[in-house]
Amino acid sequence: MPTTTTSSSPAPRRVVVVGGVAGGMSAAARARRLDESASIVVLEQSEYVSFANCGLPYHLSGEIERRDSLLLHTPESLRAALALDVRTGSRVTSIDRERRTVSVQTADGAYELEYDALLLAPGAVAVRPPVDGLDLPAVHSLRTIPDLDGLLARVGSLPAGARAVVVGAGFIGLEAVEALAVRGLQVELVELADHVLPPLDAELAPLLAEELGAHGVGLHLGVSATSVTPATGQGTDEGSVVVTLSDGTRLPADVVVVNVGVRPASDLARDAGLELGARGAIRVDADQRTSDPHVWAVGDAVEVVQAVTGDVGPVPLAGPANRQGRRAADSMLGRRTTQQAAVLGTAIVRVFDLTAAVTGASQASLERAGIPHEVVRIHPAHHAGYYPGAEQVHLVASFAPDGRLLGAQGVGRAGVDKRIDVLATALRAGMTADDLAELELAYAPPFGSAKDPVNMLGFVAQNVLEGTMPQWHAADLDEVQATALVLDVRSRGEWARGHLDGALNIPHTELRDRVDEVRTAAAGRPVAVHCASGVRSYIATRVLLAAGLDARNLSGGWLTLTAARPELLDPTPEPVDA
Amino acid sequence: MPTTTTSSSPAPRRVVVVGGVAGGMSAAARARRLDESASIVVLEQSEYVSFANCGLPYHLSGEIERRDSLLLHTPESLRAALALDVRTGSRVTSIDRERRTVSVQTADGAYELEYDALLLAPGAVAVRPPVDGLDLPAVHSLRTIPDLDGLLARVGSLPAGARAVVVGAGFIGLEAVEALAVRGLQVELVELADHVLPPLDAELAPLLAEELGAHGVGLHLGVSATSVTPATGQGTDEGSVVVTLSDGTRLPADVVVVNVGVRPASDLARDAGLELGARGAIRVDADQRTSDPHVWAVGDAVEVVQAVTGDVGPVPLAGPANRQGRRAADSMLGRRTTQQAAVLGTAIVRVFDLTAAVTGASQASLERAGIPHEVVRIHPAHHAGYYPGAEQVHLVASFAPDGRLLGAQGVGRAGVDKRIDVLATALRAGMTADDLAELELAYAPPFGSAKDPVNMLGFVAQNVLEGTMPQWHAADLDEVQATALVLDVRSRGEWARGHLDGALNIPHTELRDRVDEVRTAAAGRPVAVHCASGVRSYIATRVLLAAGLDARNLSGGWLTLTAARPELLDPTPEPVDA
Repeated sequence: MPTTTTSSSPAPRRVVVVGGVAGGMSAAARARRLDESASIVVLEQSEYVSFANCGLPYHLSGEIERRDSLLLHTPESLRAALALDVRTGSRVTSIDRERRTVSVQTADGAYELEYDALLLAPGAVAVRPPVDGLDLPAVHSLRTIPDLDGLLARVGSLPAGARAVVVGAGFIGLEAVEALAVRGLQVELVELADHVLPPLDAELAPLLAEELGAHGVGLHLGVSATSVTPATGQGTDEGSVVVTLSDGTRLPADVVVVNVGVRPASDLARDAGLELGARGAIRVDADQRTSDPHVWAVGDAVEVVQAVTGDVGPVPLAGPANRQGRRAADSMLGRRTTQQAAVLGTAIVRVFDLTAAVTGASQASLERAGIPHEVVRIHPAHHAGYYPGAEQVHLVASFAPDGRLLGAQGVGRAGVDKRIDVLATALRAGMTADDLAELELAYAPPFGSAKDPVNMLGFVAQNVLEGTMPQWHAADLDEVQATALVLDVRSRGEWARGHLDGALNIPHTELRDRVDEVRTAAAGRPVAVHCASGVRSYIATRVLLAAGLDARNLSGGWLTLTAARPELLDPTPEPVDA
Repeated sequence: MPTTTTSSSPAPRRVVVVGGVAGGMSAAARARRLDESASIVVLEQSEYVSFANCGLPYHLSGEIERRDSLLLHTPESLRAALALDVRTGSRVTSIDRERRTVSVQTADGAYELEYDALLLAPGAVAVRPPVDGLDLPAVHSLRTIPDLDGLLARVGSLPAGARAVVVGAGFIGLEAVEALAVRGLQVELVELADHVLPPLDAELAPLLAEELGAHGVGLHLGVSATSVTPATGQGTDEGSVVVTLSDGTRLPADVVVVNVGVRPASDLARDAGLELGARGAIRVDADQRTSDPHVWAVGDAVEVVQAVTGDVGPVPLAGPANRQGRRAADSMLGRRTTQQAAVLGTAIVRVFDLTAAVTGASQASLERAGIPHEVVRIHPAHHAGYYPGAEQVHLVASFAPDGRLLGAQGVGRAGVDKRIDVLATALRAGMTADDLAELELAYAPPFGSAKDPVNMLGFVAQNVLEGTMPQWHAADLDEVQATALVLDVRSRGEWARGHLDGALNIPHTELRDRVDEVRTAAAGRPVAVHCASGVRSYIATRVLLAAGLDARNLSGGWLTLTAARPELLDPTPEPVDA
C-alpha cells in the first residue's frame, strides 16, 4: 500500500515521517499546514503517537489521574484535523536512498513506501547499564506508555510501604523518585555521580539531596548498581529482588526503575549511510537536513552544538525537538527556516517542593572546556521580602571576563522557573552583566522585587568583574583557612549557631569602629570576609579595602558554604556512655 | 550643622541626596559602598526613609500583618550599616547652584548644607483632580505611610459592609480596590477612561472588569467624580459622604480613596533653574546628570525616553528608580555607568486571582505614534494542558513588519509574570518573531509546555508576517459581517453555546470534505474564519487558501472577540410580562 502520488511541482508531494512523537509529529503537522495537497505519512513503530512522554511520571504519581490525558492525539484525530496518514505498529527497517524508499514492517507484513522528503525522528533508546538481572519482572523503565503501563501494574500490586529502588538520578529518575514516594513507597535512589542531577553543579545538588532526604528517600551517591537478583528467604514477596551496589550495599526492592540515560536511536540512519557525529547522533545542518539532501532528522537522535562550550552531541529535550520538527517541515517544503541556533540545554525538574533549573554552561562544563569565567551566587527572596510567602532562591551564574553571561542555575521553592527563563532569554541574546543589571522586569510585591534577582546577578557580576568586590569561593575554604584571616560579619546570634573554626566575628555594623582589630588579627594576611548571603560582607569588604587591607568576599556566603559542606552545620556529636 | 568636610581629591567629598526612598536611598547606599570616606547626607522631608511604598496596599488589606514590615530601614540602621547621615523631617527649600548649597528646613529651624555632588530624588506628588470636597475627612490617598495610617484608621472605624469609593483604576487604584474588598467593604470604582487599567489595551481590560465584578466591585467607567459632599439624612454615619459622578450617579461612601495619577515633584529643580522636559520632569542624560554638572536626578521626577515609541516623559516605576539611583552614584563618583536605556515600562498588578502585566508599547501607543505593526493573540495554558491546574493565559503581542517585537501584554491566573518578564528581556534585546520562536525556555509539565506560550507568539507572528496566516481582528467585526462570510469551525456544541449571527458552522474536522459548501456560501466574498482561540481556524484558513478562497483567521478567536464584546455571550433577555 505505498502512497504513489506524483507531481511535477518542485515541492515534495510525498513526505514520509519516521517517528510520531514530539519532533516527528510537529513536523508532520506543520507540513500539512504549509501544504494542503502533499501526501504525509507518519510511521510509528509503537502503538502510540504524540503522547505526553514528559507527563509519564505524573500519571505514575497519580497527579494526572487519567491515562487518556497523556494521549494527546490518535491516528484518527490526526487524520480528521490534519489529513495525516498515521500508521502505528509500523517499523521502518531500512532506507533505500537511491530509490528514495523506506521498508516498513508491520504485524501484517512488509511494504515499501516512496518519498520525496524523508524525516527521521526516531528519538532515543534507554541506555542499558551493565547490570546483571535487568530482565527480572521487577525491573522497569519509564520512557514509553508501555513502560508506564508495566510499572503501574507492578506498583499497583504492591502493599503500602513497599520498597522501590531507582537507578539514575537524572531528570526522569528524580521525577520517578517523587512519583513513587508520593504513592507511598519507600524509595532508595542510586546515582553513579557524586551528586544528584548531574547537569546541576555540585554546589547546588545538596539542596535537592536534603529535600529528598526530608521526604524519606535514601540516597546512594557515587555508586553503581552491579546486580539485581531474586529475593529469597522467608517473608519475601513474589517477584521481589535485591539490588546490589558497587560498595556492597544490598537494597531489597519490590520494584526497580532504571533510567541511566539515553543514546540516539540512529541505527536506521547509520545503516542507510547517513553521516553520524562522534557520539552516534545524526549530523544535520541548520535546516535539519542530513548528509542526504532528501533526508531530514530531528529530536533526540540528532547532533546539536551546545552554546557557550561548543560541545557537539545529542541533547534529548522536548523543546528543541518540537522546534526542530517545525524547522524541518519548513525546509522540506522549500521555505525559509529559522536556522538552528546553538542549544542552551535549558531544563527544569520539580523534586517534591523544590525546583531545580539550568540554562547554558554549567561551571563543570566551563572548566572542562577551559573557558575563563567568574561565578556569582545570590540567595534573594523570590518576591518582596516584606510580602508574605517569600521563598529563598539560590541562583548561580557564570560570566566571561568581558561580562557575557555563560550559564545560570537555580534551586528554590518558588520563582526559579521564571528567573531561569529570563536568563535563558538573556543568554540567547548574548547579554552581559550590564544588560542583566538594566533588565526591566515586572515588579509588584507578590511577583518580584524592585531589584529583581536577575538584576542582582548583574549588579554582583559588575562588582566582581570591575574589581569592586574581589571574591573567594567555598571551594577555596581549606586554602583560605590556612593562609588568611576569616572575618565573619554576621550578628553574634548567627555566629553562635555555627561558624568556621578560627574565624573572627565582628558584626558588620561595628566594623568601621573595629578595623584596627581586624588589621591586628590579620597580621599581614589577606582577610576572607563572609556573612550569610554575601550582602553585609560586601559592605564589610569595601570598608576593609578602603582601610588598605587585602579583603575578599565569600561568594554566596555561609548559605553557599554550608550547602557545599553541610558538615559545617552539624554539631560534633556528644560521646555517648554505654 | 552643615557638614563641612573638604578634600583636594577629585572625587566628591560631600554628597547630598534629596529624598530618602527608592532611587535616593539606592544612590546613597551605592555611593557609600563605592567611597568609604565621603560625607553622605540624605535629606528626607517626611519622617520615613526607605519604606516599601509598593507594599502599602497589602498592609491595608491585612496580607502584610505588621506595619513595621513596610519600614525597611531607619536612619539608625542606615547609619550603622552604611555610615549614612540620614535626616528625616528635613525639607530642602532651595538650591544655590552657584555656591553649591541647599537650604534645609526642619521643625527646629533652617540651615545650609554644602555639596560637591547633589542628587535629587524628590519623587512624584499625587495629582489632585478638580473635584469639590477632597478635603473632607473621608477622602484619602495611598502613597505614603501617613496616607496609609490615615486610611487604616478610617477603615478600622467602619462597620462591616461599609461603602468605599475608589477614584482612579490605575495600578495603585486597583490594588486599593482589592485591599478594601478583602477587608469586607463594598467597593465602587470610578475611572475616567473607558476601561480599567488604562496602560492595558482595551481588549484585555474586560477580563479585569469581570474579575472585579465577580468580587462584588461596582464599576463606573468613562465617568469622573465631580464632587464629594457630606452625607445627610437619617441613618448616616458620621463622616460619610456622597460622591457625585459626571453622569449624575450619586455613590454614598464611608471612605473615598483618590489615586488619579502623579506628576513629577520637580518644583525645587525648576526653581533652581535646572532644565525640565515638556511634561515637567527633570531632564537628565544617560548618567542621570541634569543640566548642572554637579547635580544628578533620579526616580519619578525625571524624564526618560520610552522604548519603541520614543515618547519622552516621567515613568513612575520602582524598578527604573532603583537602577537610576545606582547609576547616579556611579556617575557622581566618577565611575563608568551602565547608561540609561529607553524604558520599557514593564508593570504588573494582581487583581484578586487575576494578574495583568505589560511591557513595551501598547497597541494604543503604537497607533498614536503611527508605528506600523501586526498584533497576534494567543490563549494557551500556562503549563502543559494535561497536567492538573493549567490556567489560560491571554497574551497579546505587537510586531514590526520586519519581525521586531514592539510590546506585549498578558492577563491570566498564573504564569503571566513569567511570560511578560521573558518578553521584556526579549524586547530589551531587540528580538524578533524568529527569536521568540527559537527561545529555549525551561520545560517540565508543572512549569510550561514544550512549545512555551512565548514560542507560540513567535510562531504565530511568523505565520502572520510571512503571509501564511492572513488575519482579521475583533475590531473589524462589523465590517467583516457586512462584507464577508463568517465561517465558525468550532464543534457543534461550542456553536450552540453562542455564535455570530449569519455565520456558517462547519467543524474543522469536516472542512476538507465541505469546501464547496463554503465556496457556495461565500459567493465570491472573503471568508472570515474563527474558532475558539485561533488554532483550529488556522488549519481551516490554510485549507481554504489552498482551495483558492480568500480566507483570513480571526486573531485570538472567539475568546478575544467575546472579551472585547462580552455582549456576544449574553443571551437576549426574555421579555418579562408585568
